[in-house]
Amino acid sequence: MSQKLPTILAEKIAAKSRIFTVQYQHLQFTNGVEVHYERLLGSQGGAVLIVPLLADGTLLLIREYGAGVGRYELGFPKGKVDPGETWLEATLRESKEEIAHRPQTVELLDSVSLAAGYMTHQTHIVLATGLEPAIAEGDEPEPLEIVPWHIDDWAKLLAHPDFSEGRAYAALFLVLKHLGKI
Amino acid sequence: MSQKLPTILAEKIAAKSRIFTVQYQHLQFTNGVEVHYERLLGSQGGAVLIVPLLADGTLLLIREYGAGVGRYELGFPKGKVDPGETWLEATLRESKEEIAHRPQTVELLDSVSLAAGYMTHQTHIVLATGLEPAIAEGDEPEPLEIVPWHIDDWAKLLAHPDFSEGRAYAALFLVLKHLGKI
Repeated sequence: MSQKLPTILAEKIAAKSRIFTVQYQHLQFTNGVEVHYERLLGSQGGAVLIVPLLADGTLLLIREYGAGVGRYELGFPKGKVDPGETWLEATLRESKEEIAHRPQTVELLDSVSLAAGYMTHQTHIVLATGLEPAIAEGDEPEPLEIVPWHIDDWAKLLAHPDFSEGRAYAALFLVLKHLGKI
Repeated sequence: MSQKLPTILAEKIAAKSRIFTVQYQHLQFTNGVEVHYERLLGSQGGAVLIVPLLADGTLLLIREYGAGVGRYELGFPKGKVDPGETWLEATLRESKEEIAHRPQTVELLDSVSLAAGYMTHQTHIVLATGLEPAIAEGDEPEPLEIVPWHIDDWAKLLAHPDFSEGRAYAALFLVLKHLGKI
């Protein structure tokens, strides 16, 4: 089986709404088979998912309404990397907006995809430490609730029904490994 | 801060392509603030992500072209739960189609969202054991490559650049915890 990439015979925008863009692709695999795919185009810079960790081992989670799941979701602060911004700048901005802290140290642990088969989206998972109070105004419709959670209680977080995002699990997994806790 | 859900003032289909549907929602939060959101509607039954584990600790991974990321992705077998199917039936079907095995035991470990803010999609993460050879024809454009990977080498898998999906990390995390390996 060849790992040679399929040839793109054609591609075009298939649908577009205010925030979503669907791209159609006509591909030919190396065995000659042609397929017609659709994929969602994510933003150029991707998104950051921030794991804010205080010196005593407390994670700062947020609880906010998730329109996708239609309920309040418990998770890590995150947001899109704006055009012209780096993932580091986005991390500093989102930290101030969502958890009212600015990290002194930011480490990029990994970048993950959401659905490799049909989304180009990338999320950069970062560990933010050396947190100091600092506030910036975000664009949330209501103040976000900050939920402190000790990292040693990670199994309870994993089991919490409101903590549901695959990439949030991934972030917790990576941080536990990075800190030598697993 | 109230956990009372926002009121849906209006909703309609904003865009539709062959496989994606975008829904517009006009919401009013309990503080009176109104917002206009868009979200992707996933399929009713969601998807299954299968962690196939042999008795000796070998995971059966697959390598297949991911149109979203535009390269060959290393990951777990998965697929949509078809209309009228249960997640268990989908697991049995996808196992035969993608790794040519049928599990005798299937355990649902958790269900995760992809992006709680803008996707309704749910992925059911299942552990499949008692695997016996069994083949069914899938709809892949080329034969899938099956990649055996010992579960004790999980840190190497996590670091592999072609293993990129947040929900695949989540599945590995859940299985390691379930087996008492972390």
